[in-house]
Amino acid sequence: MDARAFLRTKRDRRTHEPQEIAAFVAGHVRGEIPDYQASAWLMAAFLNGLDERETDALTRALLHSGDVFDWSDLGRPSADKHSTGGVGDKVSLILAPLVAACGVLVPMVSGRGLGHTGGTLDKLEAIPGFRTQLDIGAMRVQLDRIGVIMVGQGKSLAPADGKLYALRDVTSTVEFEPFIVSSIVSKKLAEGAEAIVYDVKCGNGAFMKDRERAAHLARRLVATTRSLGKRAQALVTDMSQPLGVAAGNALEVQESVQVLRGGGPADVRELTLELAAMMLTLSGAESDAAAARARATRALDSGAAWSRFLELVAAQGGDPASVERAEGLPCAPVRVEVAAPASGAVAAVDCFRLGEVVVRIGGGRRAKEDAIDPRVGLLIRKRIGDRVERGEPLVELHLARRDPEAEKEVAASYTIDAPARSAPALVLERVS
Amino acid sequence: MDARAFLRTKRDRRTHEPQEIAAFVAGHVRGEIPDYQASAWLMAAFLNGLDERETDALTRALLHSGDVFDWSDLGRPSADKHSTGGVGDKVSLILAPLVAACGVLVPMVSGRGLGHTGGTLDKLEAIPGFRTQLDIGAMRVQLDRIGVIMVGQGKSLAPADGKLYALRDVTSTVEFEPFIVSSIVSKKLAEGAEAIVYDVKCGNGAFMKDRERAAHLARRLVATTRSLGKRAQALVTDMSQPLGVAAGNALEVQESVQVLRGGGPADVRELTLELAAMMLTLSGAESDAAAARARATRALDSGAAWSRFLELVAAQGGDPASVERAEGLPCAPVRVEVAAPASGAVAAVDCFRLGEVVVRIGGGRRAKEDAIDPRVGLLIRKRIGDRVERGEPLVELHLARRDPEAEKEVAASYTIDAPARSAPALVLERVS
Repeated sequence: MDARAFLRTKRDRRTHEPQEIAAFVAGHVRGEIPDYQASAWLMAAFLNGLDERETDALTRALLHSGDVFDWSDLGRPSADKHSTGGVGDKVSLILAPLVAACGVLVPMVSGRGLGHTGGTLDKLEAIPGFRTQLDIGAMRVQLDRIGVIMVGQGKSLAPADGKLYALRDVTSTVEFEPFIVSSIVSKKLAEGAEAIVYDVKCGNGAFMKDRERAAHLARRLVATTRSLGKRAQALVTDMSQPLGVAAGNALEVQESVQVLRGGGPADVRELTLELAAMMLTLSGAESDAAAARARATRALDSGAAWSRFLELVAAQGGDPASVERAEGLPCAPVRVEVAAPASGAVAAVDCFRLGEVVVRIGGGRRAKEDAIDPRVGLLIRKRIGDRVERGEPLVELHLARRDPEAEKEVAASYTIDAPARSAPALVLERVS
Repeated sequence: MDARAFLRTKRDRRTHEPQEIAAFVAGHVRGEIPDYQASAWLMAAFLNGLDERETDALTRALLHSGDVFDWSDLGRPSADKHSTGGVGDKVSLILAPLVAACGVLVPMVSGRGLGHTGGTLDKLEAIPGFRTQLDIGAMRVQLDRIGVIMVGQGKSLAPADGKLYALRDVTSTVEFEPFIVSSIVSKKLAEGAEAIVYDVKCGNGAFMKDRERAAHLARRLVATTRSLGKRAQALVTDMSQPLGVAAGNALEVQESVQVLRGGGPADVRELTLELAAMMLTLSGAESDAAAARARATRALDSGAAWSRFLELVAAQGGDPASVERAEGLPCAPVRVEVAAPASGAVAAVDCFRLGEVVVRIGGGRRAKEDAIDPRVGLLIRKRIGDRVERGEPLVELHLARRDPEAEKEVAASYTIDAPARSAPALVLERVS
């Protein structure tokens, strides 16, 4: 591998052959190609572009840098979902046991929250005792027995992606679609599911603010996943306000429990059923969309999904009793309602800013090493399109201690106008 | 210093402030900014460009990363010359003592050869005993006493340039004019001369093959040197064939001695006098070009330059007797004449290829660590425009051992055509 020639190729806007990308990634993960050459390549690729064939090759190289799980011997269809992240997105907690309850294996590997977006692992760890690290043997046994695992990414999955991601982070080369696609798809395919559904969040609370770019990313995620031999579909969904009511780890577990028990906010229920139906058809468990949707709805309304969630909690060391009663989860000592400063209709919500409030009060991280307070968060009382009278609560803050600055930030996140606006659509685009 | 923000600026085609560049270079040389961030910046700058103000700021930052010599207390004008490198360019060996003999201090710091271009240090070290490393105290004493030092760059001059150059080398970001300018000018200004003359080589034996680009580089070297407060002028000179007759270390010392004694090839003598006259006027030692040229010619023809060279050799540990007789220098055991395969006129010479032959036979390096054989090299018997009969010698090879491949390469470097072509002009452009 001549790393200088490889760099020259991208520097001069030429195209890499797939085997060159494979050799570069393998050389870097083995330490033969030093970080200073890898980072120069990241910048050259960021500026001069990677085409679809190069992106697919990069994804394949990252995937094969580590273990790739294979659950085909369990003899059942399998599927998983990946969300690009937003505020209040607790769908995985409901979706994984729900789809498992419909007979489809869900070997879900999730990440932690960083910045204003939450992470599934942090939410799960708000459940007392819940363990997110399982060894491969335990994963197989649990997947066979209850059809679902929800674990963190060990070092053995796509290690080359971890190494490159660390470099992207310090060289300002994170926000580049081919890198985003290869990073997401390589990690997701390493889990061994046969079908992947992507939920690309779009709006001021998401990584992608722009609908065009979100739709493009959704298409690329699907195309790259297919080029690597797995089935894929995607939704682009709204993140112009938090999903559901709760943002914050224990609060989101509570809300997930409400949905699993047949209640909860309509948008969370709707998006979960939509994604579940896609996973059922894409994995081959159901042959048409209407039947899949009906089966998912039945699993939710019959209590089958809820039972499966309790089994999952117990299987991974959590206390099922803790999720059966609201008081079983960690509770914040201070609750403060933030009142509307004027009457009118909610015209817009700065969803990113609300996510940052959750970080500020201890519910998220600024750096990977930061600890999280599972108790804190916020409950949304008014959503886009709602009428509000001056003095009515917009948001209820759950805090470790009083924080007037957080209250001000929440109030400043709302735009209240005279004419009522209709609520935004939840699903913006479908890629199938 | 926020290195990520600095990288983002150049990634997004924005312009750095001079103090940001200073902080980045200082952070890198102190090890606070790691190589993987520096190399990503090198690639971003290579692809998105650095303007003149940024280039000047980079040059200043590299210069001030280490010692900057100051000889102003010696109370005499000072000047130096830098050549961008070519085949057979031994001008420094004649020029430095010649200008010193005219009363101008020449604190010359030179490099080693790499690839097909030779280096002044390697040539000097062909003189038995010659030492190219002097401490600062010895430099000052010698400069005061004989007006000239010829030394290698210690680690204390522009160390940030050395560190960045090593990264440029491994990240394919060498060939970028702002980096070339800042690297050359920072090292040259660290020597402490008040006036710098640049000799930008142009042609198939030079780094710059193209006259436009060579002229642009010459103008930028002059402008950046002036922006840092020193005087500068430049020539663009021909490197479409070797300068003079000899290429190879001891052979070039011999040819330099011939010129210093009033003989030698006309082109070497002419270019040396031209550069000397520029150094004399630019340093203020002479007020007009004709007087400067006359003084330089007198110093050469009177033997004053030759005496000064002998003093220089003695002062730096060399044996003056070794340069007074041809046999005093290392001699190659094998001499082979390469004959013209056809009759006609020399239409072109592949000067790069001839330089590579010198490397091949041991007279140059492919890697910095390679040892050099001072004895080997070649003598040009036919130049562009010369008539040649089939079987007449084109080149005389001086070899450590027979090498038929080298002979073939030499023959293949010559293009012999029927119609006679005129010799190329020596000086192509002047920048003053």
